Amino acid sequence: MSRLRVDGFTVSLDGYAAGPGQSREQPLGVGGEELHGWLVGTRTFLQLVMRKDGGTTGTDDDFAARGFENVGAWIMGRNMFAPSRGPWPDDDWRGWWGENPPYHVPVFVLTHHAREPIEMKGGTVFHFVTGGIEEALRRAREAAGGLDIRIGGGAATIRQYLRAGLVDEMHIAFSPRLLGGGEPLFEGLDLPALGYRVARHVATPNATHVVFKRGD
Amino acid sequence: MSRLRVDGFTVSLDGYAAGPGQSREQPLGVGGEELHGWLVGTRTFLQLVMRKDGGTTGTDDDFAARGFENVGAWIMGRNMFAPSRGPWPDDDWRGWWGENPPYHVPVFVLTHHAREPIEMKGGTVFHFVTGGIEEALRRAREAAGGLDIRIGGGAATIRQYLRAGLVDEMHIAFSPRLLGGGEPLFEGLDLPALGYRVARHVATPNATHVVFKRGD
Repeated sequence: MSRLRVDGFTVSLDGYAAGPGQSREQPLGVGGEELHGWLVGTRTFLQLVMRKDGGTTGTDDDFAARGFENVGAWIMGRNMFAPSRGPWPDDDWRGWWGENPPYHVPVFVLTHHAREPIEMKGGTVFHFVTGGIEEALRRAREAAGGLDIRIGGGAATIRQYLRAGLVDEMHIAFSPRLLGGGEPLFEGLDLPALGYRVARHVATPNATHVVFKRGD
Repeated sequence: MSRLRVDGFTVSLDGYAAGPGQSREQPLGVGGEELHGWLVGTRTFLQLVMRKDGGTTGTDDDFAARGFENVGAWIMGRNMFAPSRGPWPDDDWRGWWGENPPYHVPVFVLTHHAREPIEMKGGTVFHFVTGGIEEALRRAREAAGGLDIRIGGGAATIRQYLRAGLVDEMHIAFSPRLLGGGEPLFEGLDLPALGYRVARHVATPNATHVVFKRGD
């Protein structure tokens, strides 16, 4: 069966996934961009997200690349898709990623506010799911055709799936930075009690990469 | 002027310093012992704490060793000194470390309950300070004779000194483990706002070592 995965999700040493003060100009909050230093120079990120050549290879890139392998659908929270909150404003917002987003598969966006699907170039279709995390997972699993489902984020969405014990594998990059505030990933979550353990960890100058798995 | 330092303080990936369920049998709580895997095999730990030969050298040992260099006094919380809570019971508790503790300098124990100093073999004298963190620091500074002061822990004690902006340098070892609960080190602390930044980080198979400094 397809697995539910988190890949390449970056947190600071003090456990925050995004800096405080998220806005349209700073989607990752104050300091949130710097957090992703391990990722933005990799060959995978440049090719798949920026459509550029070059970039680094090695451990950081390996982790970036594996996050795109065998993925048949994505799930993300509303705040990862749009800077707006509450009912959808009458605007043309179609995500942060331009007309051809780097997903190329169906993406299920968790929201409390219904919206028609948006079909983008390159195979990405944004579906808006109002029925909660289990409905989103069910629909993503149908759409993924036996491939895995990747949760993009943010922290609140990942926490919901962890708390429900639904995440099979999670790669977190711990960035050597402090944020001081923002969205905590681990706070109040008892991951060992939820069945998670550290399966692998490897460090580079840019991040300590840790793979958590559920079960034995 | 002598610096106030934290050295070799170990936290889990989810940010806990000790496991839940501290007791006389498990002073570091459930899972707390495993957390210190980077330290317990080092030459420094074996020599200074266990009085044995052998042990590993290299990065983990370097971090263990620097924690004992240039230290003229220690500060620790009551819970690091004793398993009892509240008024001192009428017992013979003289710390976890036997008759010749690995400090060999004055140690200032923060407590709400006055007690006479205890003089141990090898130069360690435990002083019990009821006047709070600033009094403990003032007395430790007098005793240190120009050398540095090391805060041993636990997390609650370190957090108090961080919040007051009194810690000059802090080495934290992030252990590749999950605890799921216990004493959080970072929760609710805005370290960047308090002036702290990451000055150095280096990883080994056993831990990611990070040195935080205050100021520019």
